[in-house]
Amino acid sequence: MTKKASPTPKKNSPALKKSGTRSRKEKPVILITNDDGVTAPGIQNLVEAVRDLGKIVVVAPDKPQSGMGHAITIGQPLRLHKIHSIDNVETWSCTGTPVDCVKLAVDKVLHRKPDICLSGINHGANHSINVIYSGTMSAAVEAAIESIPSVGFSLLDYSIDADFTGARKYVRIIVEKMLASTLSKHTVLNVNIPSVPVELLKGFKICRQAYAKYVEDFIERDDPHGRHYYWLTGEFVNFDKGKDTDVWALANNYVSIVPVQFDLTNYALKTQLEKTWK
Amino acid sequence: MTKKASPTPKKNSPALKKSGTRSRKEKPVILITNDDGVTAPGIQNLVEAVRDLGKIVVVAPDKPQSGMGHAITIGQPLRLHKIHSIDNVETWSCTGTPVDCVKLAVDKVLHRKPDICLSGINHGANHSINVIYSGTMSAAVEAAIESIPSVGFSLLDYSIDADFTGARKYVRIIVEKMLASTLSKHTVLNVNIPSVPVELLKGFKICRQAYAKYVEDFIERDDPHGRHYYWLTGEFVNFDKGKDTDVWALANNYVSIVPVQFDLTNYALKTQLEKTWK
Repeated sequence: MTKKASPTPKKNSPALKKSGTRSRKEKPVILITNDDGVTAPGIQNLVEAVRDLGKIVVVAPDKPQSGMGHAITIGQPLRLHKIHSIDNVETWSCTGTPVDCVKLAVDKVLHRKPDICLSGINHGANHSINVIYSGTMSAAVEAAIESIPSVGFSLLDYSIDADFTGARKYVRIIVEKMLASTLSKHTVLNVNIPSVPVELLKGFKICRQAYAKYVEDFIERDDPHGRHYYWLTGEFVNFDKGKDTDVWALANNYVSIVPVQFDLTNYALKTQLEKTWK
Repeated sequence: MTKKASPTPKKNSPALKKSGTRSRKEKPVILITNDDGVTAPGIQNLVEAVRDLGKIVVVAPDKPQSGMGHAITIGQPLRLHKIHSIDNVETWSCTGTPVDCVKLAVDKVLHRKPDICLSGINHGANHSINVIYSGTMSAAVEAAIESIPSVGFSLLDYSIDADFTGARKYVRIIVEKMLASTLSKHTVLNVNIPSVPVELLKGFKICRQAYAKYVEDFIERDDPHGRHYYWLTGEFVNFDKGKDTDVWALANNYVSIVPVQFDLTNYALKTQLEKTWK
C-alpha cells in the first residue's frame, strides 16, 4: 500500500528513435519476450545469445503462461514493472499474456516498432500443431502481424536445468541471418532445437509443420467433497510420415525452422466451395 | 461444502454411440460451444437454429472467454457441471476455455467424436485477423484438428439484445450444407453475419481473410496508490482493399464464409528460405 509510484517507461531513450528505419551504423532494437515468465532460464539464455547484436529490451510475463495461445487481456487492466533480473538489460515484467507483452512493449515501452522480436527460448517443444497453443509462438506471430519480423525459439527440454548450449549457438546463427536479410516484415519463424549435446546437432532444416498432435485424455479425480474434476493429459502422436516436417528434422538431430503465416485462409477449400456452394 | 456429488457424464446415452460413423437414418450428433459463456443469447440462438437437425449437446464455458484465442488449461484442473439453461438440451457448463470445452466434450461427455461442432453465435465480429484472438473460432479450429468438421458463427453486434434473426437463417443454411456435404473432416469455416435486418442480407460469399486489424493503443491510468495500469483499446483499420475479403463482404451486407486451416506453414517463404538459407 505504498504511495511510491512504479517507474513508467520513458519516451526519451536515446537508443529508441520514433522512426522504424535504422541506418547501417545504428544497432537494431531487439525486443525479447517469452511465455515461461521473465525469470526463466530460457529467456536469460536468449538474451546472452544475442546481447551484442543490438539494443536489447525485455518485456515478458511475470508468471508462466504456457498454453495461452493467442490470448489477450480484454477484461482487466495490465501492469508493467521494471525489474533487474538480467544484467545490464532494460527488463519489464508484465501481468498479461505473451501477446499482451508484445503490444505493450511497442506502445508503452519502446514507443516504436523494434527491428526484430525474439520469443523464448521456450522450455519444451513447439513443433507441429503446438504452434497454435504456444504462448511463445503467439508472441512471435503477434509481432509479425504488427510488421515486426520475429522468431520463436524452443528447446526440446522442459527441465529448469536444461543445457542451452546448442540452442544458443543456433539462436545466434538464425538471428544474424534474419538481421542481414531483406525478408518481409511479416516474417515469423518457428525454431525448435533438439535436446542433444551441441556436437550432435547436424545443422538446420527449413520444414513444414507436421500433422502431429497430442491425443488427449483427461484424468478424472474426486475432490474431498465428492465432486469430479479433470486434468488434461495426453500422448503425442505423429500422424505425418513426411521427411520434410519439423518432427522428422528434430528426430534426426536437425534444428527445425518452420516459416509461419497468420493468414489462416484455406485457399484450396475456398476454391472448392466457390464452385460447389451456391 | 456440501457432500452431494455433481452429476458425471454418462457413457450409456443411447444417442451417443462409440462409432464416429452414422447411418443415413441416424441423427447427427451436434456439439455446440461458444466463448461468451453458456448463458449468452448467442448460444441459445445457435441451438434454436439447428435444434431439429440432430442430437444437440452443449458444452460451453461458465463465464465469458472472449479473446482467449487457442488457450488451454494446463496448470489447474477443470470442472464440468450439468445445467438446465436450454430447454430439452443436454447442457454442460465448463470452468475452462473454449478449446478445453471441445476436448472435454469429446473425451468425457460424448465419449466419441460428434458429427459436427458449432461455435457461437459470437456477440461481435470475428472477421479478418480476429480469427486468431477469438475463443469462438479457436474452439472450431480445435474440433477440426480433432477431425470434426466445424463452423464458428459471429454476429456483428455486441449487444445482449442483438437481433439474431438473420444469423439464425444463415446458421441453418450453412449447417444443412455442411451436414449434406462430403468435405474433409478437417474443414472449419469462419462465418460472420452483418448486423442488419434479415431482408437486407444479400446471401453468403466465400471469402479470404482480410489483412485488417486493430491498431492498438493502451489507455494509461493511475490507481489510488499512484501506480500505473493500462487498458487495451484500439481502432479497427482495414489495410486490405480486395473485394474478395470477409471485411468487404460484410460491408456489402453479405454473410462472409472464410475456410480456415490449421497448417500455419508459410509455403512460399519455405521455398524462398530453402533456396537462400544454407
